[in-house]
Amino acid sequence: MKITIIGLGLIGGSLAKDLRQGKFAEELIGIDSNKLHAQQALELGIVDRIERFEEGIRNTDLIIIAIPVDKELEVLPAVLDRIDGNTTVTDMGSTKKVITDKVDHHPKRKQFVPAHPMSGTEYSGPLAAIEGLFKGKIAIICDHEKSAPQHLALVEKMFQSLEMNIAYMSSDEQDHSTAYVSHLPHAAAFALANAVQDREDRSIIFDLASGGFRSTVRLAKSSCSMWKPIFEQNSKYIVDSLDVYIRHLQQFRDCLKENQIDELEKLILNANKIRTILDGENPLFIKNEEKIVKLYTKH
Amino acid sequence: MKITIIGLGLIGGSLAKDLRQGKFAEELIGIDSNKLHAQQALELGIVDRIERFEEGIRNTDLIIIAIPVDKELEVLPAVLDRIDGNTTVTDMGSTKKVITDKVDHHPKRKQFVPAHPMSGTEYSGPLAAIEGLFKGKIAIICDHEKSAPQHLALVEKMFQSLEMNIAYMSSDEQDHSTAYVSHLPHAAAFALANAVQDREDRSIIFDLASGGFRSTVRLAKSSCSMWKPIFEQNSKYIVDSLDVYIRHLQQFRDCLKENQIDELEKLILNANKIRTILDGENPLFIKNEEKIVKLYTKH
Repeated sequence: MKITIIGLGLIGGSLAKDLRQGKFAEELIGIDSNKLHAQQALELGIVDRIERFEEGIRNTDLIIIAIPVDKELEVLPAVLDRIDGNTTVTDMGSTKKVITDKVDHHPKRKQFVPAHPMSGTEYSGPLAAIEGLFKGKIAIICDHEKSAPQHLALVEKMFQSLEMNIAYMSSDEQDHSTAYVSHLPHAAAFALANAVQDREDRSIIFDLASGGFRSTVRLAKSSCSMWKPIFEQNSKYIVDSLDVYIRHLQQFRDCLKENQIDELEKLILNANKIRTILDGENPLFIKNEEKIVKLYTKH
Repeated sequence: MKITIIGLGLIGGSLAKDLRQGKFAEELIGIDSNKLHAQQALELGIVDRIERFEEGIRNTDLIIIAIPVDKELEVLPAVLDRIDGNTTVTDMGSTKKVITDKVDHHPKRKQFVPAHPMSGTEYSGPLAAIEGLFKGKIAIICDHEKSAPQHLALVEKMFQSLEMNIAYMSSDEQDHSTAYVSHLPHAAAFALANAVQDREDRSIIFDLASGGFRSTVRLAKSSCSMWKPIFEQNSKYIVDSLDVYIRHLQQFRDCLKENQIDELEKLILNANKIRTILDGENPLFIKNEEKIVKLYTKH
């Protein structure tokens, strides 16, 4: 199968590596407006060749858009305008409502399968691309009833070849859940980095930073060009999630300030429950696709 | 040298492993009020034998107190009351002002060297003890002018045998800096875990949790019995740090809510500077002890 990837950064590059490795892609075409990235991706063997936009999206089986979500708002309609009738289009954007709304009435909407793989690192660009980035993670497919069955099937098969589990949600549900589980942690890390730099010397931070601080603040290293438009497009739910987070922080602060140690203990013990969720001791979870569909779809 | 460790959890157990490995300890005595922990430590070969408090702190060269800081407030004076004139005492507590104030006028204060290794994991107990936990990390020694030179020298030599760098600060400075670089990130993670659990189902968190969320919320798994008294003892600086953090989060939220995207970009780009600090591209930092002393001491 011939696959065209638009955007050869961390996500696009890592996808290319695994799709080739898993023999899902026979031919890999790259498109990137950043010439340095295009050249690096070619040199690293991530794609077979670089093509210009107009050529690269013609005569291809599958187009994967893996660019910042503000750019995607322009590129996606341009792709749908130009593709052949058999080409499948998917995307990797972290927001979905604004994007799906943008092409909701496009005559080729059925060829598009909106998706979001819950995976990444704090680094960016083709040099950051790594193998196995997606294995065992969740891929969210949105509003699947609006995609034609053949196009949906091909994108599902792609995620299966990456050994991902698939969750089906509406664009709105995905934006809500992703606000809490991904966008809020990024905002929390950006603000933590700013708070600590506000009050401590660079050299003190560097010297004292333990594994704990590094871990909590890690996402603050994330690319601005990728994250700024995510915050912008999903601002409603992210503002909600920040309000909830700020209330929980204020509650923690108030317990401390008023020396309500029993209350503080309750907050810590409740937070500790995240351990059983993240470490997989969740009895509610049955890891098969049917169950996931059941959990997430309202259809 | 004969070393007695009071508290055979993550920190005490990991110390024992490395002190034996580096041949700094010839004989290792363990004391733990938790009988299960004592037994596990013995079975794992972490210590040579378990002794009761009164025996274990007699006829020993170095006593390391590695227990929650509320317990330490009772145990430290009891240790100083009973030790021989040659024994050195150090501790591993994350707070220092309340602890050093407690024994400030103790006749054996000069035998005590207050310390805090900036290292740990979110796990606890002797089963969580690992080798190499301290290597390359910073050990803070507080108020070193209040310890006799021999006792200070022995504790410095111990940290050097663990391949740690040493920073010298007053107890007050350490509590301030540690509030921002360690205690605040823990509070941020506890509140994030509570905020997300407040709004999302356990199974959705489990399924969607990417590496980013796991990293940011990791510290929320930390032991309540260790962290509750840290928050209590360092509440003034932690409340300050939470106020600063909440202000930065509110600023981030307000930019989003009012669609001030240029301002949001500035906040993200400022946060990104943590990258050059944490990844060691800090031109201010020269990694030798003299420089560190210069940076951190007001003496």
